[in-house]
Amino acid sequence: MTDKMREAAAFLREHDNYEILTHDYPDGDTLGSGYALCMVLQQMGKKARVITTSVPKDYLFLQEGVVAQDFEAETIVSVDIADEKLLGVNREKYEGRIDLCIDHHITNKVNAPLKLVEGSAAANCAILYKLFRLMDITWTRGIANCLYTGISTDTGCFRYTNTTSETMRIAADIMDIGCDTVYINKVMFETKTKKKIALEREVYDTIEYCLGDRCAIITVTLETQRAIGVSDGELEGLASIPRCIEGVQIGITMREKKPNEFKVSVRTNGNVSASALCETLGGGGHTAAAGCTVTGTPEEAKATLKAAAARFL
Amino acid sequence: MTDKMREAAAFLREHDNYEILTHDYPDGDTLGSGYALCMVLQQMGKKARVITTSVPKDYLFLQEGVVAQDFEAETIVSVDIADEKLLGVNREKYEGRIDLCIDHHITNKVNAPLKLVEGSAAANCAILYKLFRLMDITWTRGIANCLYTGISTDTGCFRYTNTTSETMRIAADIMDIGCDTVYINKVMFETKTKKKIALEREVYDTIEYCLGDRCAIITVTLETQRAIGVSDGELEGLASIPRCIEGVQIGITMREKKPNEFKVSVRTNGNVSASALCETLGGGGHTAAAGCTVTGTPEEAKATLKAAAARFL
Repeated sequence: MTDKMREAAAFLREHDNYEILTHDYPDGDTLGSGYALCMVLQQMGKKARVITTSVPKDYLFLQEGVVAQDFEAETIVSVDIADEKLLGVNREKYEGRIDLCIDHHITNKVNAPLKLVEGSAAANCAILYKLFRLMDITWTRGIANCLYTGISTDTGCFRYTNTTSETMRIAADIMDIGCDTVYINKVMFETKTKKKIALEREVYDTIEYCLGDRCAIITVTLETQRAIGVSDGELEGLASIPRCIEGVQIGITMREKKPNEFKVSVRTNGNVSASALCETLGGGGHTAAAGCTVTGTPEEAKATLKAAAARFL
Repeated sequence: MTDKMREAAAFLREHDNYEILTHDYPDGDTLGSGYALCMVLQQMGKKARVITTSVPKDYLFLQEGVVAQDFEAETIVSVDIADEKLLGVNREKYEGRIDLCIDHHITNKVNAPLKLVEGSAAANCAILYKLFRLMDITWTRGIANCLYTGISTDTGCFRYTNTTSETMRIAADIMDIGCDTVYINKVMFETKTKKKIALEREVYDTIEYCLGDRCAIITVTLETQRAIGVSDGELEGLASIPRCIEGVQIGITMREKKPNEFKVSVRTNGNVSASALCETLGGGGHTAAAGCTVTGTPEEAKATLKAAAARFL
């Protein structure tokens, strides 16, 4: 255990009336962290609530076991938030007011008097697991479900490169506490809607290989989106399709937003920088995942993207 | 450690000149088991080779560290083989000759004087891990890679219902030995060949929903297999497609092996037993994943499967 972890445990014992902040466009790790910590604090006789911008339907079960409490907030804790900019609509209210920041992003920029940041943790929930062990909490299925959800979603169910042997052992301990892994894995990793299947089928027909098959482009036309009636959730994840094709270094997804305007997602393998590529087209992002907007007819937009990709291969 | 495990360890020490049998349409678990055991036996100064019907390209790396040896076979071990029928073209030569059977299928029907069968193991490679610990072998990266490949592929990278906390801890131990998880996870779970993409596209067109959409059936015809020129490796994994559709409890994959003969994979959610279903058709397997062979025209075979599925819904 680190000194910071002991400090964080002492801090949580000493204070009360907690608001726990999660990041915008919330995922399993920020929500799992938030609700797990909230249940632990309530179990200790404290008052606590989780502040979110929204909770996607598939994550609603994480709230089971949390009691709605009426109180005036005194203590602010952020979980899985690398930067206060990521507070979304809650930024104005909470920026500069965070007392304890718990996070696993090595680039953490949150301004707080006490920070428990472990960049080597695969998920923020893995840090909380160790903190809760130190605090000797009473383990419940609800807390275990929250932590397992955070760890499994942030590691792509233990297949991303951030997964370590420690991650695996923490997950094993959580499973032994008692945790609905069958339900969670099914919902998070093993379920596609019929519309999603129909969408993938349509998109497969649009795959175009270029630049010696090192680049693959898929297109989601407005017509397809309308015909199938897909939601944003169903469109999510499509961008990984071209990148996963054997030999492809640059995978491009063109989503028609309105006639002659495309939202473009670029995913890369190996040494190609997706953000550098997208920056040449006015966009940006991360090394392996970035985006931009391209206008023109489908043919013109594709030509623009191919020319940009060619400069990076 | 069970008595059977001690017996198996003693058996392997006492004998020599091994042929290790893997099952037809080999997967990561049978090949990982075969090559890991072969390396362990060679390390002990024994002569050993692995007998396969084929080795899909993606699994060729498992052979690294195995030495080709010339010898007359004396001792026959089967790994991950539930039934001698699954020996494929090697059946005639080896049926009734197996001395030691190591397997994790609870329905194991192999006829052998010594059987180490643990139905609770997520993968055969998980049994071998415990056996190798008992035997106090010298661990190498090659052996670790084989065992990790078997365990990760048989659990869908730790997301299938057969994954237990013991599975997670064994994987953690293997990662600590030193193992190429980044490479293995990329190849096994994050890469699709162009042919695989073409195959999925064709298969999406064959999805048939029945029994109130609680059952979905996909068909891979000989024509599709020939037209795309797919390998066994590319066919693997298709079976998870129908099961992953929202609301589907029984997902069935019919692969035409020759005219009017189908290799059937059944995958189930919830309370439906895939092995019980397949046993009614002369097959077997695990609770959530099982198989059988069905003959007849495509329509007849499908009718047979629908009738069998109906009894379990």
